Amino acid sequence: MTQGQYDTQTIGVIGTGLMGAPMARRLAEAGHRVRAWNRTPDKTETLREHGIDIAHSANDAATDADLVMVMLSSGPVCDDILLGAGSVISSMTPGAILVVMSSIPVETARGQAQAAEAVGVGYLDAPVSGGELGAIDGTLAIMVGGDPATYTQARALFAPLGRDVHVGPAGSGQLAKLANQTIVANTIATVAEALLLAERGGADPAKVREALLGGFADSTILQVHGKRMLEEDFRPGGPAKWQWKDTQTAQALADELSLELPVSRLVDGLFGDMVAHGDGELDHSALIRELRRRNGENPR
Amino acid sequence: MTQGQYDTQTIGVIGTGLMGAPMARRLAEAGHRVRAWNRTPDKTETLREHGIDIAHSANDAATDADLVMVMLSSGPVCDDILLGAGSVISSMTPGAILVVMSSIPVETARGQAQAAEAVGVGYLDAPVSGGELGAIDGTLAIMVGGDPATYTQARALFAPLGRDVHVGPAGSGQLAKLANQTIVANTIATVAEALLLAERGGADPAKVREALLGGFADSTILQVHGKRMLEEDFRPGGPAKWQWKDTQTAQALADELSLELPVSRLVDGLFGDMVAHGDGELDHSALIRELRRRNGENPR
Repeated sequence: MTQGQYDTQTIGVIGTGLMGAPMARRLAEAGHRVRAWNRTPDKTETLREHGIDIAHSANDAATDADLVMVMLSSGPVCDDILLGAGSVISSMTPGAILVVMSSIPVETARGQAQAAEAVGVGYLDAPVSGGELGAIDGTLAIMVGGDPATYTQARALFAPLGRDVHVGPAGSGQLAKLANQTIVANTIATVAEALLLAERGGADPAKVREALLGGFADSTILQVHGKRMLEEDFRPGGPAKWQWKDTQTAQALADELSLELPVSRLVDGLFGDMVAHGDGELDHSALIRELRRRNGENPR
Repeated sequence: MTQGQYDTQTIGVIGTGLMGAPMARRLAEAGHRVRAWNRTPDKTETLREHGIDIAHSANDAATDADLVMVMLSSGPVCDDILLGAGSVISSMTPGAILVVMSSIPVETARGQAQAAEAVGVGYLDAPVSGGELGAIDGTLAIMVGGDPATYTQARALFAPLGRDVHVGPAGSGQLAKLANQTIVANTIATVAEALLLAERGGADPAKVREALLGGFADSTILQVHGKRMLEEDFRPGGPAKWQWKDTQTAQALADELSLELPVSRLVDGLFGDMVAHGDGELDHSALIRELRRRNGENPR
């Protein structure tokens, strides 16, 4: 989707941290009028150089905006700023669209959608995958939940940020993100087990990984995290403690849905053990250390 | 690796079934002198048109060959034809190389390597991944275990068949294949659970799969088998009963090595349940039916 096919919009950006700041820059570079707010004002100063206005409050950023993009740290922080009397939602123009791009629980997103609808504001939940680099390069995977017409109206916002896919009604974006995180967690455990089997059996695990690339066992995790496991390079891209938070959120949702997901439940427990053993700050690929521990090895 | 850099070799091919026949054809097309034998002679007749000689016995195929390639159905069948007095190994010229490309247990491969060494014959275990199509197109992933010098000598055989990687001493090719099959089995279970979570939560699982492609959750299994799950197209590429045989072999090896692989053990059990419920002839991606059953659904 090229950016040129969309009209210029006025976009309020709430939250300009590691992810929000480069996303705001990309929106401004695409020609949109961007007004940004962050709880810690010093994080907004460099944005001025990119033609972004700095708002004095979240409400100020939202007032008169066509689209309000939110990239705050958690569900409760979003609710705190978005909902209730005198909040962002009440400052928005009826017909404008609130796009929450934070990763928050499915139920929180559905509650926000209802609150927005009550004041005539459109709502989309649109969490992303791809990290800071994806935000800078505009290559994020954007998983969008909400009303189809609202989604179509909001695509001007997504185009400069990455590849958006509409996956269902409000809350579905968060569901897709949980599915993503579940696959990542389980595949890390899977690749770790396969490399351990190869190593203990007497093969060269680095060569085994190489042999498997391009075949049915290939995955982004085998390519990226498998390499980290072999090199024991566990500087965090994604820290294990965050991965565990995701697997816990997925399990809580599965419980609500009375859905038994045996592999995901087991892997949730493995990440919990890993964090309990003090490896929570390491990259999630360091789960291989937890498997070594279980097998009587003493990981360095 | 181009084929031209290797000298013409005399290659005996033992076993010309679904995989062995197209592999023999590719070796002949690459300019090697190929002599093939199969237990059921009618399977060899069409090979004559490709300039392949038909041998009257396995020993006849092996006599005077520089390389003997074996693609039989199982470890016991290989042992039966290869080992003992008057067998293939005893017919081979000292200095020639026996290359067993069947998927067989690690210990079986190590036993064959010792028997070959005792009569001065080189040995490689070199199982493949990529199926009949990979055999026809010469795009197999070939996982090679054995002595490095023997491996180098045998590369003329691998070049027309696919991409070979030397992964360690004899038996290591089989270890790599088990690692491959373990990852495939676990990733199928993982993708099935993630799609079920998305579906039960109210998202469109096909759109969720689409959103995840290209990100950290991407894998060949998400691409190929995830699609089959969504379309409920369970015509066997790889039947579940074979997948279960592989996960059982991997667990038996892990037990021998006193290695606990919790996710792989759980998935082995899931495939066992799937076969017990009568789905063994379906494609392994039909594991999603087993997960539906566990969650009170009645898969069609």
